[in-house]
Amino acid sequence: MPSGSVLVTGGTGYIGSFTTLALLEAGYKVVVADNLYNSSAEALNRIELISGKKAEFAQLDVTDEAAFDKVFEAHPDIDSVIHFAALKAVGESGEKPLDYYHVNVYGTICLLRSMVRHNVTNIVFSSSATVYGDATRFPDMIPIPEHCPLGPTNPYGNTKYAIELAITDVINAQRNNAKKAGDEAEAAKWNGALLRYFNPAGAHPSGIMGEDPQGVPYNLLPLLAQVATGKREKLLVFGDDYASHDGTAIRDYIHILDLADGHLKALNYLRANNPGVRAWNLGTGRGSTVYEMIRAFSKAVGRDLPYEVAPRRAGDVLNLTSNPTRANTELGWKAQRTLEQACEDLWLWTKNNPQGYRQQPPAELLEQLKK
Amino acid sequence: MPSGSVLVTGGTGYIGSFTTLALLEAGYKVVVADNLYNSSAEALNRIELISGKKAEFAQLDVTDEAAFDKVFEAHPDIDSVIHFAALKAVGESGEKPLDYYHVNVYGTICLLRSMVRHNVTNIVFSSSATVYGDATRFPDMIPIPEHCPLGPTNPYGNTKYAIELAITDVINAQRNNAKKAGDEAEAAKWNGALLRYFNPAGAHPSGIMGEDPQGVPYNLLPLLAQVATGKREKLLVFGDDYASHDGTAIRDYIHILDLADGHLKALNYLRANNPGVRAWNLGTGRGSTVYEMIRAFSKAVGRDLPYEVAPRRAGDVLNLTSNPTRANTELGWKAQRTLEQACEDLWLWTKNNPQGYRQQPPAELLEQLKK
Repeated sequence: MPSGSVLVTGGTGYIGSFTTLALLEAGYKVVVADNLYNSSAEALNRIELISGKKAEFAQLDVTDEAAFDKVFEAHPDIDSVIHFAALKAVGESGEKPLDYYHVNVYGTICLLRSMVRHNVTNIVFSSSATVYGDATRFPDMIPIPEHCPLGPTNPYGNTKYAIELAITDVINAQRNNAKKAGDEAEAAKWNGALLRYFNPAGAHPSGIMGEDPQGVPYNLLPLLAQVATGKREKLLVFGDDYASHDGTAIRDYIHILDLADGHLKALNYLRANNPGVRAWNLGTGRGSTVYEMIRAFSKAVGRDLPYEVAPRRAGDVLNLTSNPTRANTELGWKAQRTLEQACEDLWLWTKNNPQGYRQQPPAELLEQLKK
Repeated sequence: MPSGSVLVTGGTGYIGSFTTLALLEAGYKVVVADNLYNSSAEALNRIELISGKKAEFAQLDVTDEAAFDKVFEAHPDIDSVIHFAALKAVGESGEKPLDYYHVNVYGTICLLRSMVRHNVTNIVFSSSATVYGDATRFPDMIPIPEHCPLGPTNPYGNTKYAIELAITDVINAQRNNAKKAGDEAEAAKWNGALLRYFNPAGAHPSGIMGEDPQGVPYNLLPLLAQVATGKREKLLVFGDDYASHDGTAIRDYIHILDLADGHLKALNYLRANNPGVRAWNLGTGRGSTVYEMIRAFSKAVGRDLPYEVAPRRAGDVLNLTSNPTRANTELGWKAQRTLEQACEDLWLWTKNNPQGYRQQPPAELLEQLKK
């Protein structure tokens, strides 16, 4: 069992909850912090149903620095943080950028200040492929490697970029200051992983755990799932005049279980190898167009799902496909699951949980889980 | 007389105080906000001695959002902010980056949130040429134009960069939201100037107003001035192995009165032309090496000043010389004063005010001022 507990901010959200599950299954003790603004504490019960293990929970807002202090004081064995808590809607970030800078950037400043005060030395940050912006502006940068120059095209991406800069500067300073003081062991303790991921997709194959956004979802697959259940009349395809083979935008969809496993592997790598700050792409390396995704999810559902073409959205780019070689080789991590599996798992979750976490899952799924 | 008052954050600091003077002389009403952490309120008395006009003063810290609210509520005629308040030591930012993110980035988030709440719609931001990083990595980017890709090389520069992103996103959102609501007049009111300046130098020609940093100065000319007065044994030249004609780093030194005038011109431009967010370089367009500066200041002092070569500092770059064409043509602004004048004015200030603002200036200078 790994030593040291892990604080997961935003741990009841989509990626946060699956990462919490992966950490518990790997034997970590986990404290989840979330303000439940866009998630449900029920996620923690589902995690327990699946893993038989329980995460502690602290309801807090990331802009409340004193609340972080309390968590670290109550749990002195926490030596690492996986930081998901953030606002994450690209479109909304264009309308309310100050909320994004306040929650995302200032929230991270609060976290880092409290981490430094309490000697919590490892941080795995939920960054985003959005930091690359339109990588097609460079020759030979698709699929995108980590050394691609950064240049986000929307406020959400700008906040992720600013946070990457802050984490890098803070970890480097902690290391350099310790080295100057002659304490190499202390220097090695400070590490950061910047995980730039592509499009998370799918749900738990048990059918009892998945994405449950409050309000209107804004990613392709959750929207398609609403079309499949009749909650939404049709899918809006934002732009069919991109320079792809079918005109729709290309993204790299990664199964949520693979993505969660990437966080676990990154944390293990930080603790074992003390690399300082390092960025890793978490993606499959394979791009899919919007039309291909509609076909794949329609196949899982068993019928064609209606869609309509709408204008491009501001800030969207043609192609965000990862080059995951660095994570493959350094972290020993590779996306294992197929797009078809992501679509099937998502559909199983969606049709069995029409109210998301607001209702109990079907008894037969819980029965199957016990076997 | 221009309508609308101006809030100047950091208005008792070096550039802030000279800009306050320029605003008062141009007929603006000015409220200065400062925490006096690295400056003295005496600057406001000197401004009054020179201009015969008085700025209001509010002692506040930029990370205190409620304090901004109070200022805007007490002064509902404020429609513009010139935002200087920040930590500004490149070297220190490498050791204490979190302080820089907290004060500079979070401080600006606080300011912007309060501005939006109180409908204060113009912001002139004290950015820095540091946002360009090492422009010599690009062909044809010396002297540096505003379209040079940004890439700071130290935490101080990263915070300036993050603030430029935040201001740009917020102003654009305010404009776009107003346009969507059909209110073009409201949209036009929101404007931002990102002033990237090069190396401020010199003092007021009266000899009673200049730079008065608390603690150790970290810029070339103030350090040279300390050598001239004997406070410092010799100047350390950080690196003589750069690819310049004499091996020392090249910077673009601009007289503080010219720089202050650039802020006034930028503010007037925002109010008259409603350009949205726009970046302008404020520099002379002429680069000087460290050795050239030592010779120029030695000439003003009347004797050779001792120096010693030390290793390069982390984050320093070979050449930061501006291309000021955009400011010249759009703002109708051009640096008027020579490097020799900057050196002479600095020396007049330094030799007459060995304690900076902590003692009254010589009676004969005050007499001359009255003439």
